[in-house]
Amino acid sequence: MTARLSISDAAQLVAACLEKNGCTPGVATQVANVIIAAEADGAPSHGLFRVPGYVASLRSGKVDGGAVPTVTPLAPAALKVDGAGGFAPPALAAAREEFVALARSQAIAALAVVNVHHFSALWTDLEAICSQGLCAMAFTGYLPFVAPAGGTKPLFGTNPMAFGWPRGNGEPMIFDQASSVQARGEIMLAARDGHLLQEGVGIDAQGRPSIDPNEVLKGAMLTFGGYKGSAIALMVELLAASLIGEQFSFQAGETDNKDGGPPRGGELIIAMDPVALGGAGALGHAELIFSKIVDQPGARLPADRRYANRRRSAVEGLEIPEVVMEKIHALMD
Amino acid sequence: MTARLSISDAAQLVAACLEKNGCTPGVATQVANVIIAAEADGAPSHGLFRVPGYVASLRSGKVDGGAVPTVTPLAPAALKVDGAGGFAPPALAAAREEFVALARSQAIAALAVVNVHHFSALWTDLEAICSQGLCAMAFTGYLPFVAPAGGTKPLFGTNPMAFGWPRGNGEPMIFDQASSVQARGEIMLAARDGHLLQEGVGIDAQGRPSIDPNEVLKGAMLTFGGYKGSAIALMVELLAASLIGEQFSFQAGETDNKDGGPPRGGELIIAMDPVALGGAGALGHAELIFSKIVDQPGARLPADRRYANRRRSAVEGLEIPEVVMEKIHALMD
Repeated sequence: MTARLSISDAAQLVAACLEKNGCTPGVATQVANVIIAAEADGAPSHGLFRVPGYVASLRSGKVDGGAVPTVTPLAPAALKVDGAGGFAPPALAAAREEFVALARSQAIAALAVVNVHHFSALWTDLEAICSQGLCAMAFTGYLPFVAPAGGTKPLFGTNPMAFGWPRGNGEPMIFDQASSVQARGEIMLAARDGHLLQEGVGIDAQGRPSIDPNEVLKGAMLTFGGYKGSAIALMVELLAASLIGEQFSFQAGETDNKDGGPPRGGELIIAMDPVALGGAGALGHAELIFSKIVDQPGARLPADRRYANRRRSAVEGLEIPEVVMEKIHALMD
Repeated sequence: MTARLSISDAAQLVAACLEKNGCTPGVATQVANVIIAAEADGAPSHGLFRVPGYVASLRSGKVDGGAVPTVTPLAPAALKVDGAGGFAPPALAAAREEFVALARSQAIAALAVVNVHHFSALWTDLEAICSQGLCAMAFTGYLPFVAPAGGTKPLFGTNPMAFGWPRGNGEPMIFDQASSVQARGEIMLAARDGHLLQEGVGIDAQGRPSIDPNEVLKGAMLTFGGYKGSAIALMVELLAASLIGEQFSFQAGETDNKDGGPPRGGELIIAMDPVALGGAGALGHAELIFSKIVDQPGARLPADRRYANRRRSAVEGLEIPEVVMEKIHALMD
C-alpha cells in the first residue's frame, strides 16, 4: 500500500509537519527540502521515513527548530558555522555563500560545521557547492554503530564520506557512501520489512556474524572492505570531530537522549577550485574519464542512478508507503 | 636465501646504485631514503624490490635524475611544485617547508605536485608533514591496472589514498591504502614467488575472476569494497590529475614508455591544522578514539604494525632476498 505525492506536495506536507512540531517556517522548509531530495533521488532511507526521527528530536527538546546559526572566520582559508543546536541544513545554508567565495579566492577552503544534528544524505550538502564549479568533500559522524576492523564492539558512526566534482552545466558527479557496508537506515528498513541482510553487513551482540537485521541493530555493523573501510571510518571520526572541535560518534552515544533523532555532531567540508589549481582545462579533462567509465558495459558513474531517479520522480511523483504517510499525519495531530 | 643489511648500509647501497645510474647525489639520497623507509616498515613491495624499476626509468631517459623542482604559489592557500620530470621525493622535499607554513597560516592548504614520477609509498610523503602537527591527506594515480566497478577493463591506477594525524611527540597515525584490493607490487611479488591470490583481487583479460597473479597482471585488478572502492579510485584520479592539471592513469598508460619504472603523474596533498580548526584540545581529543580502538581485542591502529616493523628493523636490520641483492649489484656494474 503506497500513496503517490508530487514533489511539491510532499515538501509542503513535511514542512508543515516540522513546523507543527516546533521548527520556524524557514528551518522547516530547508529541512523538508533535503528530506524530499533524498526521497526523489531514490534513497527512502534518508527520505520521509526519517520524519518521525526529526520530530522526536524536536519534541524531546534535543534539537532547536528555531536555532539561528552563526558563521565565524577561523583563519584565512577556514570558516566555522555553529548550528546552535539546530538541524544541519540551516547551518550549511547560512555559511554557503561565504564558503564558496572563500574557496574561490584561496583555491581551497575548509568549513567546520559544529553543534548541529545531521540526519540527511551528505550529497545534498555538496550539490549546492559543486554546482558552483567547485570540487568538494564532506565527512560526518553519527552514533556508535560500527565496529573497527578486528573488533566486535560498536565505536564508529556509519560515517559517510562524500565527494563531488562539477560538470559545467550538467549535474555534478557526487558519491556519498557510508564507511559501513550498508547504511543504518537500510538495515532499519530491512527490520521493518522483515528482510534478511547480506553476509558481512554486521555481527550480533556476541560478535558473531548475523544476517538478522534486528540482531545486527543490537550488535555492530561492519565496515566496507574490512580494514580499509575501517581506516576511512576512523578518518571520518577525526575530521568531523577532533579536527573541528566536536564530539566523536561514541561520545554522541554517551550524551544523546536516545529519542530516535540525530545526535549532536560535526561535519567537515573541504572545497577546492579546479580552475585555480589545475587551469582552465580542468573540467574538460575530467570528462575524459567519465566517458571512459560509461563506455564500459556494466560500469556507471556514481550519481547517475540517483539523477535518473530524480528525473523520474519529477514526472511521476513520489511513491510513499502508507505506513510512513500515516505516521507523518499522526505527528501533525 | 636472504642477505641482512643495516638500514644505513642499505640506504648507502641504494643511493650508490641510483647515483651510478644518473641521479645527482642529493636526489639519490632522497629517493634511497623513501625506498629504505618502506623496506624497514615491512612493505617490501615498495622497498628494494623497486630499485630495478627506478633504474630502468633513469636509463631509458624517462626520468631525469638531476631534475630541479620549482615551487610556485597558485593562490593564497595553494602551492604548486613542478618536479621537472624527476622522481617525487625531491619535489616534495622542495615544497615541504613552505607548504607546512602555509597550512599553519591558512588552517588548510593544498599542494599540487605535478610532472613527477611517483614510485614510493604515500605514507612517507605524509609523515614529514604530520610530524609537524598537521593532519594531511595524499592522493596519487599510477598506470591503468584497475577496472571500475561493473566493468572489466583496466582504467584506474591502483590509486592509493593516505591520511595522517599528528600525535604530539609520538609517531603520527597514518594509513595508506590502494583503491585496489591489493597493491600492484604485492601481485608482482606473488607472481615472482609462485603464490596464488585471494578470490576477488582481480580478473583475467577476458574479464573472468582469477587467482593466478600472472593472469591478473594481464587482465585487471578490482577495487576494494566493490563500487565504494571504485568511487574512491575515481576520486583519486580526479584529485591527482584533473584538479591539478596532470594526466590520468589511463593517459599515463598511453604515453609511458613501459620501461618498468613509474609513469609521469601528479599528487595532491591537503594539509590542515587541527589547533587552528578545532582548538587547543584537538590532539588530546583524538587520543580518546585511538585508546578506544586498541582497547578492543583484535583491533589496532592503522600504522601500528608498520611502526613495530620499523623498530625491529632498526635493531635487526633488513632482510633482503638474495635475488634482489643480485639485481641491485648487477645494476651497478
